[in-house]
Amino acid sequence: MGFSVIGKSLPRKDDPLRATGKAQFTGDLSLPGMLYGKILRSPYPHARILNIDTSKAERLSGVKKVVTAKDTLGIKFGVTGFIPPSFDEYALAIDKVRFIGDEVAAVAAISEEIAEEALDLIEVEYEQLPAVFDPIEAMKPGAPEIHDLEHVKNNISLYVDRNFGDVEKAFRDADYVREDEFYCQPVDHAPMEAHVSLADYDVSGKLTLWTSTQSPYYVHKHLERTLGLKESQIRVIKPYTGGGFGDRAGGMSACEFCAALLSIKTGSPVRISYTREEETSTSPRRHPMKVYLKSGVKKDGTLLACHYKLFADTGAYNNYGCVSINIPIEAMTVTYKVPSVRYEGYLVYTNTQPSGAMRGHAHNQPQFALDTQLDLIAEELGIDPIDIRIKNARQEYETSCSKIEVGSCGFTRCLEQSRDLSDWNNRKTKQKEGRGLGVGTMSFASGAAFNFFGAPSGYSAATVRLLDDGTVTILTGASDIGQGSDGTLSMIAAEELGVSLNDIRIISADTELTPVDYGTYSSRVTMFAGNAVKIAASDAKMQLFETVAKKLEANIDDLEAKDRRIYVKGSIEKGMSFTEAVCETMAANKMMPVIGKGNYNPHVQFNMLTGEGNCTPAYSFASYVAEVEVDKETGVVKVPYLVAAHDCGRAINPTRVEGQLEGSVQMGLGHALMEDLVTDKGLVLNSSFLDYKFPTVLEMPTIKSVVVEAPDPHGPFGAKESGEGTTIPVVPAIGNAIYNAIGVRIKEMPFSPEKVLKALEEKENRT
Amino acid sequence: MGFSVIGKSLPRKDDPLRATGKAQFTGDLSLPGMLYGKILRSPYPHARILNIDTSKAERLSGVKKVVTAKDTLGIKFGVTGFIPPSFDEYALAIDKVRFIGDEVAAVAAISEEIAEEALDLIEVEYEQLPAVFDPIEAMKPGAPEIHDLEHVKNNISLYVDRNFGDVEKAFRDADYVREDEFYCQPVDHAPMEAHVSLADYDVSGKLTLWTSTQSPYYVHKHLERTLGLKESQIRVIKPYTGGGFGDRAGGMSACEFCAALLSIKTGSPVRISYTREEETSTSPRRHPMKVYLKSGVKKDGTLLACHYKLFADTGAYNNYGCVSINIPIEAMTVTYKVPSVRYEGYLVYTNTQPSGAMRGHAHNQPQFALDTQLDLIAEELGIDPIDIRIKNARQEYETSCSKIEVGSCGFTRCLEQSRDLSDWNNRKTKQKEGRGLGVGTMSFASGAAFNFFGAPSGYSAATVRLLDDGTVTILTGASDIGQGSDGTLSMIAAEELGVSLNDIRIISADTELTPVDYGTYSSRVTMFAGNAVKIAASDAKMQLFETVAKKLEANIDDLEAKDRRIYVKGSIEKGMSFTEAVCETMAANKMMPVIGKGNYNPHVQFNMLTGEGNCTPAYSFASYVAEVEVDKETGVVKVPYLVAAHDCGRAINPTRVEGQLEGSVQMGLGHALMEDLVTDKGLVLNSSFLDYKFPTVLEMPTIKSVVVEAPDPHGPFGAKESGEGTTIPVVPAIGNAIYNAIGVRIKEMPFSPEKVLKALEEKENRT
Repeated sequence: MGFSVIGKSLPRKDDPLRATGKAQFTGDLSLPGMLYGKILRSPYPHARILNIDTSKAERLSGVKKVVTAKDTLGIKFGVTGFIPPSFDEYALAIDKVRFIGDEVAAVAAISEEIAEEALDLIEVEYEQLPAVFDPIEAMKPGAPEIHDLEHVKNNISLYVDRNFGDVEKAFRDADYVREDEFYCQPVDHAPMEAHVSLADYDVSGKLTLWTSTQSPYYVHKHLERTLGLKESQIRVIKPYTGGGFGDRAGGMSACEFCAALLSIKTGSPVRISYTREEETSTSPRRHPMKVYLKSGVKKDGTLLACHYKLFADTGAYNNYGCVSINIPIEAMTVTYKVPSVRYEGYLVYTNTQPSGAMRGHAHNQPQFALDTQLDLIAEELGIDPIDIRIKNARQEYETSCSKIEVGSCGFTRCLEQSRDLSDWNNRKTKQKEGRGLGVGTMSFASGAAFNFFGAPSGYSAATVRLLDDGTVTILTGASDIGQGSDGTLSMIAAEELGVSLNDIRIISADTELTPVDYGTYSSRVTMFAGNAVKIAASDAKMQLFETVAKKLEANIDDLEAKDRRIYVKGSIEKGMSFTEAVCETMAANKMMPVIGKGNYNPHVQFNMLTGEGNCTPAYSFASYVAEVEVDKETGVVKVPYLVAAHDCGRAINPTRVEGQLEGSVQMGLGHALMEDLVTDKGLVLNSSFLDYKFPTVLEMPTIKSVVVEAPDPHGPFGAKESGEGTTIPVVPAIGNAIYNAIGVRIKEMPFSPEKVLKALEEKENRT
Repeated sequence: MGFSVIGKSLPRKDDPLRATGKAQFTGDLSLPGMLYGKILRSPYPHARILNIDTSKAERLSGVKKVVTAKDTLGIKFGVTGFIPPSFDEYALAIDKVRFIGDEVAAVAAISEEIAEEALDLIEVEYEQLPAVFDPIEAMKPGAPEIHDLEHVKNNISLYVDRNFGDVEKAFRDADYVREDEFYCQPVDHAPMEAHVSLADYDVSGKLTLWTSTQSPYYVHKHLERTLGLKESQIRVIKPYTGGGFGDRAGGMSACEFCAALLSIKTGSPVRISYTREEETSTSPRRHPMKVYLKSGVKKDGTLLACHYKLFADTGAYNNYGCVSINIPIEAMTVTYKVPSVRYEGYLVYTNTQPSGAMRGHAHNQPQFALDTQLDLIAEELGIDPIDIRIKNARQEYETSCSKIEVGSCGFTRCLEQSRDLSDWNNRKTKQKEGRGLGVGTMSFASGAAFNFFGAPSGYSAATVRLLDDGTVTILTGASDIGQGSDGTLSMIAAEELGVSLNDIRIISADTELTPVDYGTYSSRVTMFAGNAVKIAASDAKMQLFETVAKKLEANIDDLEAKDRRIYVKGSIEKGMSFTEAVCETMAANKMMPVIGKGNYNPHVQFNMLTGEGNCTPAYSFASYVAEVEVDKETGVVKVPYLVAAHDCGRAINPTRVEGQLEGSVQMGLGHALMEDLVTDKGLVLNSSFLDYKFPTVLEMPTIKSVVVEAPDPHGPFGAKESGEGTTIPVVPAIGNAIYNAIGVRIKEMPFSPEKVLKALEEKENRT
């Protein structure tokens, strides 16, 4: 394709900073006179607050301020304003507490120890209420009512019923119909960096917040609403951030709100750092879900209909839930060409930790159901699992039954490559007992074009400034939380302008300085911010082209920017250096700086009433084949090898794409085999990293990453998403491989040794 | 004029931060692992460096690095590249040391105390050389040669000889000719904040420097040259800054260079803070000057010719000297309508602390000479001192003999107002012995349109971004060093856009983020950055006007922006709110942000060969009348009352203008009466604030500030300079008042009690 920068595996500029510990994370920052904040949390899953007495805590030497709900404006918040039930949470509980960990009060003191001690001195009088911990139980008549809201009956916060095509007729036409029930456990995001926020409200009335967030812009908007401040009074800065995975994409955390409120009340900077236990047991988890799936097929395996019922446990508050319950439509209708789908989704309150977005957001659960059931159907019909998928696989430029227009699609190639590179046809049947292969798949949005604050659409803006020494400065609101978007955006600008990556500097994620960007979630950054940067760079380039065309008496359309030169295509000598072109353009324009502006706002139409239409301009696809080795004595499942074939459109930086695939496999592996937030009456029992287990490097398989490129016309240089969807296929691939290895089918995650042994025992009893 | 914001005395947004000690100055910043730097300085005024042994210092526990010239690239620097002799200094001395305090080595250690201790362990072998401390002595044949440079003979770094008009003929035509000789002492800038720089060179090769500077952009450029880094590898940030007065307008200090070099060599952040003694005795001082002035007049007092000879002691290095020696032409030809002027200027090296720019830069000395001599002539001819000034006063839209085009000019009004408000006609003659009145005057540039790095001209750029909640963000490189330019620029933008000052936020003085601005010197900020901001705001406004005109089907020229609305002039209801207009403009343009760009680049032509033409687009003027009370027993001069009448074009913020006038009077008072860097063989004897005396609030006169507005077409809303020139008239006003009070004429500054008593004694001896 003749790219100079795109497609090269270039290191990140900030790698050395991270590697040497020089990168400053929020927890590394401190300000003179800084206080330390701590949050008092409910010890009960459900209780009425009768009284809070903070006087003893306030008298403790070193305590500067104790705040409770009465110090707030009592404004509810949530993630998204455009679905009304979403705003259901007070930053500090007013009337009731609804889960163990609900925020009740916050303290600022001169040390963390004193703040901690003060928490014990706050006397809260509770009236305990009956609690409910399971969504199915919570929906039953007579179950405790968690929220007293008009639109909520039987603790159902939101119910969606979507019908695409004629589902009843399709089931009647089917040769074979089967129903299965699945359960997906709650898991923790487990980012390396726990929530941490440093707020500094100064005497001029300006609030600056440094915080570990995926969406500085949303934090900004939520703080405005809940604190009653003006946009210009707030500045949110995202320093280096140690991951997120959806955990901090949801707008505002209590950590952020309380740090800000305490700083406002004390006039001093306040930093709050969550402990690991706080992080695990109170910040959002992946939704636990029960999934019922009924599918109808023709004899040859052609899918005719699916009917999903999905019960999502949103916990005590909705957080992202109102979005989460709408998202699965994509998983259900895009990946495979099923002509009719009914989807019933229940978002149900329980007295547990709130659930939120997590890598693969609300796709993982229905995709686990579908990919498992597809294998069961294939076996019944005597078709190879990959063959049945290829038969039904989505093809490019098709429209789904839910009226989603799919653009580029390399799904069939992914399926073929994962089959060929795993030696599927040999190894699936000819291995020794205890070893097996399984396949899992996915499609995923390249960024959700929603916006939660009423702007015309979900968008990203960027500006690109060309300096007179040939350096290029990008200003973007996009948040690099470790995934490397700063580097990707820099490569896009370098390619567009025909300069080297070293010529680019990037300033990102500061709501006072950088153009709006909604944040890092839904795998949107490369598509949205990438396009914005590309448009801005192109805008700047065209300004140079105009100058050069005049100077050379050439046609603008004949010009090219490459190798730090701008010249007539085909005759590199007929042109000038990039730097000269910048200086000439400035000189021709009264020394005005050369600034390019870009804004990306995809023209997609999702119908909130019918659930039809696109939320995103492009879809990625993937097929993974996992090989497992099951120890039938211990029940332990190991994954020695995994082929991950992913259509990411175009790999801007192949090393980064591989990094995302490998990280996704790690996360999927934990999801499949061991991670589980174990609770007892709402109390999380394994909130420390001693108890909450995820795979380490020792458990990691050898991964064969395959980048399948099906460039999309909407993506910058053809790029689509890579990073979020890529975690989805791991679970079904491992589940299906376990069946292939030992003949047992586990429909309740995780596939722990206990469940494996239990399944083996049941199988034995049956035979 | 119907202004909404301009002309109002509005407080600064950051006043509360300064008042409560919350404002973070460079010395308040610290970084993890930060080291402390100290600089080893020469104890000799002139010596050859034979050897430097740093081994003992390096072995001291806690010392991380010792650097000497061999760790540098050995690149000379100075202030301005466009006058070749300007670059005459090594950041760390290579061959010789040329003054007591010359930088020889620098140390980084884990504490300031250890760094200090290490300095004592560095063994420097010097060969002492004969030294010279007086410019007249230094010019004599056989004087020690301080710089071995081809263009330097007899230590004369630069000699200029300018001839405007036919001076010889004019003297022949004169009715009265007199010659006088004056001496102006060296004085210290004495900013509250001594030099301090914090450098952080990170592992990605990026150097960030927080520094107390007036010109982040120049520091950036000098660091590039002397450290051999790329523009994009450097970021210079100016935190809150405690004054400057020219002291840190000169490009780069050893403090900045050594902090950067030590950070590069250690990989750790390094902060260097000068002690007060270091600040006073090694950073630039006001040029000591000898001024010979010969003037010819007609009987009626009309000035016909002046011939100045000026010997400026540049000290060991030129710093700003090559500019300083060219500047006096303005003072000599603009203030008064003298038709012919010869100016000979000698810039002479001595083995003393370098001289540099200081408030009033190279005007103060010749203006002291002229204003004193004018009084002597007036007395001789029997004319009132103010009358002779009015007769010769510059009028608006005239061209000087040096081909300087003067625009607006309220000088005569200043003279009249200072006369009337001081009750001149009564109080000058009818006071008791020991009390007297005197007048002093000035004209001053509203910013020098020079640039020192080869850009097409000396310029300022700004961008203004309109946010969709009606907030406005200004990005400017202009440096608020305490004078309040952030507030002034905000007021300009608010007026232009028709919003309130509270709607404006401003981000300034960060070379990575903000558009180029050359800095705070030559009273340029309001004119240069102010115009840039006004143009940028107007650019943004016109984008809104286009939208609104379309929407209302109105003519763009009929629209007005006021009171946070944009509407058809005269019918406020026919329009929309500012915020709506921003949102509509974004919506009409694919949600592109509304960004206005501005650049100011005055089209003035100064001829470096002849010294003719303008360096600036507009001149301010002033006339001060000081009343003194002289104690003939002690020689102590007090100034109970002073009228300061100043034509600043338009007072953007009257309180700020008055603040500048009052600050200028304080500085002029010190210059006139007490400040003096006393040296003995090059050693500064009074480098601490215990010994170096300047006026405190107790010595301050009652000041009657009079803002005379003669709006200039080039100034933003008519504004011209206010702040630098305003210090000039104080000295001659006080000198002339002393003569009026006690009949003695002191031509050697300062007018200390000793000099007053000596003059009285001489007078008595004469009579």
